[in-house]
Formats: sequence, structure tokens, C-alpha cells
Amino acid sequence: MALIVQKYGGTSVGNVDRIRNVAQRVAKFRARGHQVVVVLSAMSGETNRLIALAKEMQANPDPREMDVMISTGEQVTIALLSMALRDLGIKSRSYTGWQVPIRTDNAFTKARIESIPDARMRTDLNDGNVVVVAGFQGIDSDGNITTLGRGGSDTTAVALAAALKADECQIYTDVDGVYTTDPRIVPEARRLRTVTFEEMLEMASLGSKVLQIRSVEFAGKYKVKLRVLSSFEEEGDGTLITFEEDKNMEQAIISGIAFNRDEAKITVLGVPDKPGIAYQILGPVADANVDVDMIVQNVGHENTTDFTFTVHRNDFAKAMDVCKKTAATIGAREVIGDDKIAKVSIVGVGMRSHVGIARKMFEALANDGINIQMISTSEIKISVVVEDKYMELAVRVLHQAFNLDKAA
Amino acid sequence: MALIVQKYGGTSVGNVDRIRNVAQRVAKFRARGHQVVVVLSAMSGETNRLIALAKEMQANPDPREMDVMISTGEQVTIALLSMALRDLGIKSRSYTGWQVPIRTDNAFTKARIESIPDARMRTDLNDGNVVVVAGFQGIDSDGNITTLGRGGSDTTAVALAAALKADECQIYTDVDGVYTTDPRIVPEARRLRTVTFEEMLEMASLGSKVLQIRSVEFAGKYKVKLRVLSSFEEEGDGTLITFEEDKNMEQAIISGIAFNRDEAKITVLGVPDKPGIAYQILGPVADANVDVDMIVQNVGHENTTDFTFTVHRNDFAKAMDVCKKTAATIGAREVIGDDKIAKVSIVGVGMRSHVGIARKMFEALANDGINIQMISTSEIKISVVVEDKYMELAVRVLHQAFNLDKAA
Repeated sequence: MALIVQKYGGTSVGNVDRIRNVAQRVAKFRARGHQVVVVLSAMSGETNRLIALAKEMQANPDPREMDVMISTGEQVTIALLSMALRDLGIKSRSYTGWQVPIRTDNAFTKARIESIPDARMRTDLNDGNVVVVAGFQGIDSDGNITTLGRGGSDTTAVALAAALKADECQIYTDVDGVYTTDPRIVPEARRLRTVTFEEMLEMASLGSKVLQIRSVEFAGKYKVKLRVLSSFEEEGDGTLITFEEDKNMEQAIISGIAFNRDEAKITVLGVPDKPGIAYQILGPVADANVDVDMIVQNVGHENTTDFTFTVHRNDFAKAMDVCKKTAATIGAREVIGDDKIAKVSIVGVGMRSHVGIARKMFEALANDGINIQMISTSEIKISVVVEDKYMELAVRVLHQAFNLDKAA
Repeated sequence: MALIVQKYGGTSVGNVDRIRNVAQRVAKFRARGHQVVVVLSAMSGETNRLIALAKEMQANPDPREMDVMISTGEQVTIALLSMALRDLGIKSRSYTGWQVPIRTDNAFTKARIESIPDARMRTDLNDGNVVVVAGFQGIDSDGNITTLGRGGSDTTAVALAAALKADECQIYTDVDGVYTTDPRIVPEARRLRTVTFEEMLEMASLGSKVLQIRSVEFAGKYKVKLRVLSSFEEEGDGTLITFEEDKNMEQAIISGIAFNRDEAKITVLGVPDKPGIAYQILGPVADANVDVDMIVQNVGHENTTDFTFTVHRNDFAKAMDVCKKTAATIGAREVIGDDKIAKVSIVGVGMRSHVGIARKMFEALANDGINIQMISTSEIKISVVVEDKYMELAVRVLHQAFNLDKAA
């Protein structure tokens, strides 16, 4: 008998029939003798409907009241699933965030979980109940309702698994696992049986949005066994996220290809090459509340250098304005920008112990005439920026070059 | 400076614009220096939508989960009003039932309020906040969400006014007060400036559904000054519900005419006239969960009597079946029924001290050829059952006979 936490997202609970399917899946696990805690999102579209209603009322809705409002979405689905389970003869109790309680800080609309007492859930589980918890929400120390921000239900599930020392945390989505890359771009893309925690982090932040990145960090911190599965397939093992490299495993060098075309590139040309330049340029950008992703500064020449970074495409105009002002102040020559770019990355813990990965990547891109505009590397990934029209081609070329269509 | 509790029903908060109107009304009271607690219902139609969703999932939805679900309706409106108030520059905080907390028993879907600690609200009020409370909901001693049943928001408002010792509890509806009768039937119907608590109870239970009857009982018990007003009119004093007869006031003999065509009449003919008959007939009816309204038993003759009572029209067929079985058991001759009836009542504390009211009522009906099928009286009302096609005529005739179109 195991204790399993299962999380189902918005499309998995999109209507009454789908919620019945979730109940049947839960019933299967109960029939095998497992204890089950289920975490649910709101029905797909419901959170957006509530946000729209709030914005109709107030251009910038008060964050405390926003949380009171949008937390109702999950409250409806937990009641419905609990009814569906009882209809199958399975004992069940729904819990809102404050009923668990899921204790958070008071950062409305983006709260962080602080602690989860497990006593009440434990009693209900031992009493034979399935415990159905509203994802995405909690309660602060003053008794206010909080929400964890978009995708927070994944984090709720992992945090509950950690608090209950669950044997496994299963995240049910509309895909059946983590793939080597997006199958819509590369039909040969293959589901990974396992992916390391660090690879998953790189994949998630780079655009393979299967799991919310915070939930993966959380799982890593508390060593929660995390698995991604499809809620629309009857069987299947999905992808297991592992936290230790298996030394005996024939490790693939590269696990996957991530990509992202949400970014724009800004270059400050002819910057006086002296200490403090990065701070002088990026300080005002941060002050304008713009997040910076890649940063590249090459060696200078003739006492000047060029400084390039990328931001989210939505922030492009704002960041350009900021940089033009900065350029005038620090005596830089010119600011140029480009929002027709895409970032393509190869990710894999295997590259740590293999040389020549970067060379192979650049060679493959060059062979197909794809020019590289920026390069940035970490321990387990190499990212390049290319003209956005080449993105799909670059992903396909790299998928083939690293033989990702073949099982390791 | 007064402390005022205001309650707005579903049509008053039916959309974003109407909620803005509520905010403006609240703002007016704040501007006069009053402290304001607002109680809200769900947006009109929302509770029905949620109930339909629950019934789509489970034919008889689990009551605990039903309450988790339907309590979300008010949670949305309190957040929206709080946003609207902040948009007007007014400090405000929303409270769900469990946040107040409104402590109830654990009778899901029809819970009763047990206590309301006022400390938290008091702090927020003294801090300059408008406190916006979700009506209709509470929390039981195990931390479960409960609801008070249909119309429970009125009760929430009165209970809060009692707990806070508020100066006045204002119930905003889509009518501007309590009328001598329904203006749709008698255009000359007049708004009453005051109505006594007991009259209001009779009016409410007889079909003038302005206020939920439980809330009126509650107000009487805790001596809450209760006023009914229109949420769609700018000014106006509505109708004040009073709890003491004003001896100095020129009291109208009759305050209003109530009516109801939701009932059906059942007569058991030729019942052996001996003790215990009422119990033998009505016991099985109660066991079948059917509420009985009027009961009439006349003096018997030749050792038998006739026994007549009314039930809700929806329960007519069920009650007839029950009575036919009973009739066979107790040796009654026959059971006859009629669902084409209407009840018309005159209500007024003034009739206590005036003779001849009944005579005047029966005379007025007789003059217009309206036959009376049943009569039932209390201290402050006289009800008659007539054929339902005469209902409107009876109401008009009585309204005129008692000069209700003229101010007292």
C-alpha cells in the first residue's frame, strides 16, 4: 500500500464527464489498496473568466480581493470530484486551501507555501477517505485567502507529497510525459522514461512547459518522486523526474531540445569598456521591472565593447526606451534591438562528461546555413539565439544530430 | 455616526455595473460618517447554475460538497464589491463566512447560525474599512463550510446586525418596501412606512416574499431594527419593521392583504368523530415529509366529521395517496382534493382591538359573489380559501373594503 498524490489540471477537469473519468482513475488506485490525495485545478477557462470579471470591475484588481475571487474555481472542482467519487461508492472529502491548511506568506496572487500540517488529512486518509484538495490556494497567517500564481496547483501537489512523505507525486496533464522536443515540430520526438531534475528545470524554463518550474524546484528540495503522466490515456508510465544521476545507466548525452520565441534581443554598441558597465546598463532595466534572460558581453577592443541581452518580447519596447536613456548617460554609441529572434537549447546532464558537444551543435546548424547570433552555456545546456524563421529547422536539425529519435 | 448593516440580493449584484451602483450607495453612507457592513448574495442565477452543475454530477448531491460548491457564488460578489469600493477610494475588506467567522451547526444546506464573534470585524471597521461579508454561508465546529439555505443572506445580515449591535439593518431588494398588497394586482397598493414584526411574519409566510421569514424571526429575537428598501431607487425610507406597537400612532386596523396560490386542499370525509383523528390523519402526512398549512375541522354530526387541510401544490398527489391509505385504515368515507384554490389573508395588529373585521371581510367577498371554502384565523390575521380564479378579485375587493389605498 502506497500513499500517492495525484494532480489533475484544468483540461482534465474541464467538464462533468472528464471529472467522472478522474474519479474512475482514482478508484483504480484505491482498488489496488493505495491511499490517494488528489489536487485539482479549476475547470479550464474558469480562472480566466474570473480574472476577466475582476478586470471589468477594476483595471488593476486589488490582489487580496483577486485571490478571494479566483480561488473559487478550484473550490467548485473539488466538490464535483468528491461527489463523483461518492457516486462510485468511494469515501471522499474535499479540502479548500485554508481547510488543509496550506500555510503561505501574504504575497497575494503569488504566495509561497510555508508549511502544511498533515494531521487532518492523515486522519481522513486513515479513515478510508480520498482527500481532494484545491490546488493553487492557501491561507496566510492573518487568515486571508492567498493564491500561488499561475500553475500553482503543481506546486500544491508536490508540497502535499512532501508534507505527507508520499511515495509518489503524479502530475496528470494533456501530454503523456516529457519529450525530447515538441512532437508538433519534430514528429520523431520520443518520450523520455526518465529525466533528471536539473534537465527538467532547464527544459521547463526554456519553454517545454509540462510542469511549473517552482514545483520541480520544490520536488528537488524535498526529494519528492515526481512523475508526469497523461490523464487521457488508460495506462502508461509517463516520465519520472529523478534527482540522482544513475551511474549505471547508459546515459544519453543530450536529453532534449528546448526552444522559445518569446524573447527579443537588445544590444548596446560602443560601450566604454570599464568596470560597472553591466550594472549601469541592467540596473535601470531591472528598475523598470523587466526580467533579463541571456546576457552576453564579449571582450572589448579600442576601449569599447558591445553588450547584448534578451528580454521577454512584451517588454521589448520598454527595455529599448530604458537603454537609449542609459546609452546617452554612459556615452555608448548606439542601441539596436531585434524581436525577430528565437532561442534554441540542447539540454543534458551527459554533456558534463563529454567533450565536443558544442562543436557538434554549431556544426549541425552551420551545415543547414543557420546563423548563430548569441551563445550562452551552462553546465547542462547550450543555448543559441537564431533568426526566428529558422527556429523549427534548428530544432529538427539538432534533434537528428544528437540521435534523439532513438532510445538511449 | 451609526453602524449600519446593509444587505443586497442577487439582482442588486447581478452584474459589474450593478455592483458599482451598490458601491456608490455604500460610499454615500460612508461620506455621512457611518460605519458600514455589507452582506451580499451571489449574482442572480449563479447559485442555480452551481446547483445544476452539482446535479449533473450526482442526482442527489452530497450535502457537505454541495455547500463547498454553492458557497463560491457569494465569494465572487464580495471580492467584486470590495474592488469597486477601493476603486472609489474607500478602504474595504471582504470576508467569507469562515473568515468572520459565522459559526453554525453542521446541518449542511440548511445550517443554523450559532454565534458570530465580532472582534475581527470591529477592528477592521474601526480602522476605517467597509466590511463586505458573504451571505448565506458559515463554518461548523469541524471547520466545514455550511450554507443557511435559500434566502439565508437576509438571516446573515440580521445576525451580523445583532452581533455588532448595529443601529439598523437595511435589506435592499428590488421593491422599495412592504406594500399593502402586490401592486401588480392592485395598482392602488401603498407602501407601508412601518409594519410590525408580527404582521411581517404573517405577510412573509402568506406569500409577500420580501424578506426571508427566518431573518424576521431573528430580528425579533434580537430586537434588530430592520428596514426594507429598494436598491434601484436613489432615496426613500422603505418600510421599517417595528417590534413594539406604537400606542400613540393612529394604527391602521388592517396593514395588508397577502395571498398565495401555491396550495392545494384535501378533505377526508366521514371521519369517525373520536379523539386522535387529527393525529391519525396528519401523522402519515408528516412522515411523508409534507408540510401542512391550514387545518380545519368543524363540529361533527352523526358521529362523523370532515377534516380538511392544505399542503403545497407540489405535494398534492403525494398527500392524496397518503390520505387514501389512511382513510381505509380509520374507516373514513372518502378523500377529496382540489388544487385549484387560493388563500387570501388580511393581516393587521389593529384587528386585536377592533370587532367586526371578519364580518366586514366576509361581507365584501359575498358582495362580489366570491364563495369562501375554508376559514382560519389567528390573533392578527384572517385567511380564507377561495376558488383560485377569484384570487385577484378577492384581493382587490378587500384592499378597497379596508381603505388600504389611503394612508392611515
